Amino acid sequence: MPTTDGERVVADLRRLAEFGRYKSGVHRPTYSPVDVQSRHWLAGRLGEAGLDPVIDGIGNVIGRHPNARRRLLVGSHSETQPYGGWLDGALGVIYGLELARALAADPDCAGLGVEVAAWADEEGHYGSYLGSRSYIGVLGDDEIEGITGRDTGKPLRAALAEAGFAGRPRERVEPGRHIGYCEAHIEQGDTLDASGLRIGIVETIVGIRNFRIGFIGEQNHAGTTRMVRRKDAGVAMVRLAARIHDRFPEVAGPHTVWTIGRMLLEPNAPSVVPGHAEMQVQFRDADPARLDACEERLLALVAEASGAGPCQIVVEPIARSEPRPMDPCFQTMIEAAAEAHAPAMHMRMPSAAGHDAAVLAERMPAAMMFIPSLGGVSHHWSEDTKEDDIILGAQIFTDAAARILRAAQ
Amino acid sequence: MPTTDGERVVADLRRLAEFGRYKSGVHRPTYSPVDVQSRHWLAGRLGEAGLDPVIDGIGNVIGRHPNARRRLLVGSHSETQPYGGWLDGALGVIYGLELARALAADPDCAGLGVEVAAWADEEGHYGSYLGSRSYIGVLGDDEIEGITGRDTGKPLRAALAEAGFAGRPRERVEPGRHIGYCEAHIEQGDTLDASGLRIGIVETIVGIRNFRIGFIGEQNHAGTTRMVRRKDAGVAMVRLAARIHDRFPEVAGPHTVWTIGRMLLEPNAPSVVPGHAEMQVQFRDADPARLDACEERLLALVAEASGAGPCQIVVEPIARSEPRPMDPCFQTMIEAAAEAHAPAMHMRMPSAAGHDAAVLAERMPAAMMFIPSLGGVSHHWSEDTKEDDIILGAQIFTDAAARILRAAQ
Repeated sequence: MPTTDGERVVADLRRLAEFGRYKSGVHRPTYSPVDVQSRHWLAGRLGEAGLDPVIDGIGNVIGRHPNARRRLLVGSHSETQPYGGWLDGALGVIYGLELARALAADPDCAGLGVEVAAWADEEGHYGSYLGSRSYIGVLGDDEIEGITGRDTGKPLRAALAEAGFAGRPRERVEPGRHIGYCEAHIEQGDTLDASGLRIGIVETIVGIRNFRIGFIGEQNHAGTTRMVRRKDAGVAMVRLAARIHDRFPEVAGPHTVWTIGRMLLEPNAPSVVPGHAEMQVQFRDADPARLDACEERLLALVAEASGAGPCQIVVEPIARSEPRPMDPCFQTMIEAAAEAHAPAMHMRMPSAAGHDAAVLAERMPAAMMFIPSLGGVSHHWSEDTKEDDIILGAQIFTDAAARILRAAQ
Repeated sequence: MPTTDGERVVADLRRLAEFGRYKSGVHRPTYSPVDVQSRHWLAGRLGEAGLDPVIDGIGNVIGRHPNARRRLLVGSHSETQPYGGWLDGALGVIYGLELARALAADPDCAGLGVEVAAWADEEGHYGSYLGSRSYIGVLGDDEIEGITGRDTGKPLRAALAEAGFAGRPRERVEPGRHIGYCEAHIEQGDTLDASGLRIGIVETIVGIRNFRIGFIGEQNHAGTTRMVRRKDAGVAMVRLAARIHDRFPEVAGPHTVWTIGRMLLEPNAPSVVPGHAEMQVQFRDADPARLDACEERLLALVAEASGAGPCQIVVEPIARSEPRPMDPCFQTMIEAAAEAHAPAMHMRMPSAAGHDAAVLAERMPAAMMFIPSLGGVSHHWSEDTKEDDIILGAQIFTDAAARILRAAQ
């Protein structure tokens, strides 16, 4: 069995967290200067592990294996949410790196290889799973042309040029090259932490639907415009948002989550009646029928509010992903590895977060393994995991990958 | 009677609107590069009109009269709201400039002088009436120290340094130097435009109360954090905002206006449960008792929402001004001038907008004159006024100022 070096894993994670450190977390938006630096550092590390590293035209860092007979693709993403956590996607990338080193060092694993990817922009600073979608061939140049930064408004093309990635070819999946894809990640919820378990084997990745809702009012002076004459886009937005939060419980299932995480007012000045407003409504569930019910309710509430006036309300579906089951055989292998190193300390569970594994699952068998998040905190700089769990997870992930590679022989 | 040159007034207004032009309006935030350029241009214009111009340590442009026996202070502000209108405060500044030229050219006005001010930051990009409050001596260095830009977060000190105003002395009112203060402005409401009248004589400037309301939640992942575990600051904000809009009509009077013009979510990302949110609630009325009733209701709604949880809600009063009656004698003079040039086409009215005149009124008799706003549109780039009304207003304002100066002799 290939053996991992836990201290080396933790040291690499801590080094990667230096790029964009913020308090005990990391602020490393996709294509920011620190993100670009971290990708070059990762490429260097993959090279030291014996892989052929490349940074492609969308910013994916991929370490290709020069000569394995069978290859497993592994990885995750390396950018972070704004002021996010130090583990999140970084964990799966460094686990992949350690896996590559452990396999190379184990004579019993001759001929078995992994290729390690750090997919670009899983966190959506620019688009939706840009890196993994580019890799499986569903991100067209026309889509790239239209994308701008969520917080900066900067065109993606300009960001890629500044990052030094413009003009590079984009890596594409080769049919038959990989037996499948495996990704490790922190759970980001509190199920493992609250139950004292140490490993989660993902059964399904939830489906996510996102809608952008725009409110068209009339910008005016906040003193001189009488209440009856106003078309206040902000009022329309807060009323609809409150109504969504009131009415969604009627159609939501026990595991449905819905979020209005982003709101914009224009011009957002205290003495101006807002003329335009925008919010994003997102909901997730593993059951497509439940997602349909939520969507139907959302559209009905929008139509009702827009019909009542005085502001026009427009709704536009944006990023959308269907629930994605993970490969049953891979799940069995991960479970066996978990049982070997942490008997009875693991469980099968859905992933309530979207992951690149859901994208890769469109082209090859895919699986995911979780380690606990302390208190379930995620997408925040205070996110953390016990060092023992990080070290144990690396060994189990490596063992599981070796089992999957052997079983495919 | 001193005579104004209508074409010159319009030409100067159009020239000033070139600094930061946006569509048919202007984007000229306080201390922005175009704002600084416009202040230097204004100072030059005041010099050409025979005044001694100075730009002081807070950015006020003041044209001092070298040798008048009696001086009237006139002016308004020259920065704009974001993507705001071309007249707004600029009108009163250019009327002041034209008044200075008209008095200087009229031998019958020997010894009568005006001093013209373009007060800094009436629009509140940094603070509350910074320029006029500095001039009357109620803006301390300690307050300046704590101020940051509303949209940029930039410290006021840094903005003043970049503008080149740091280290300059701040001009201060000299007791006895002025017989009073007069300000012209567009109405910003639709009362004059809707009734076909051409001049408004302001009786009272409404009082304004502003509150910043902060929501303290818990930032987390929008997929993995179950609904029951969330402390979503955005949900708390939209619920309270909707409740304010529902309940304020019960305590508001016929002329009360209330506005939530500014909202912020943190981190404002679609896949993150907001950990912090903030909004500003503002209301205005000419009646202090009505303002008290609104404030009482607001604080009760905040207490109720905060008590209900799960987010803590904190409320902080920010800019606040009391209703301010205008000088009755000055009103009579403006009315007489309006009657001379536009018989029966004028009315007395309150100002539903705050103005520097309310600040100056704390130190000297003050008055305001309005011209119509087309459709009542204001604080938007499409704001406009008929050219005939702009030209007529300049003449009436000049005539009124001459009457006020003569009456004081």
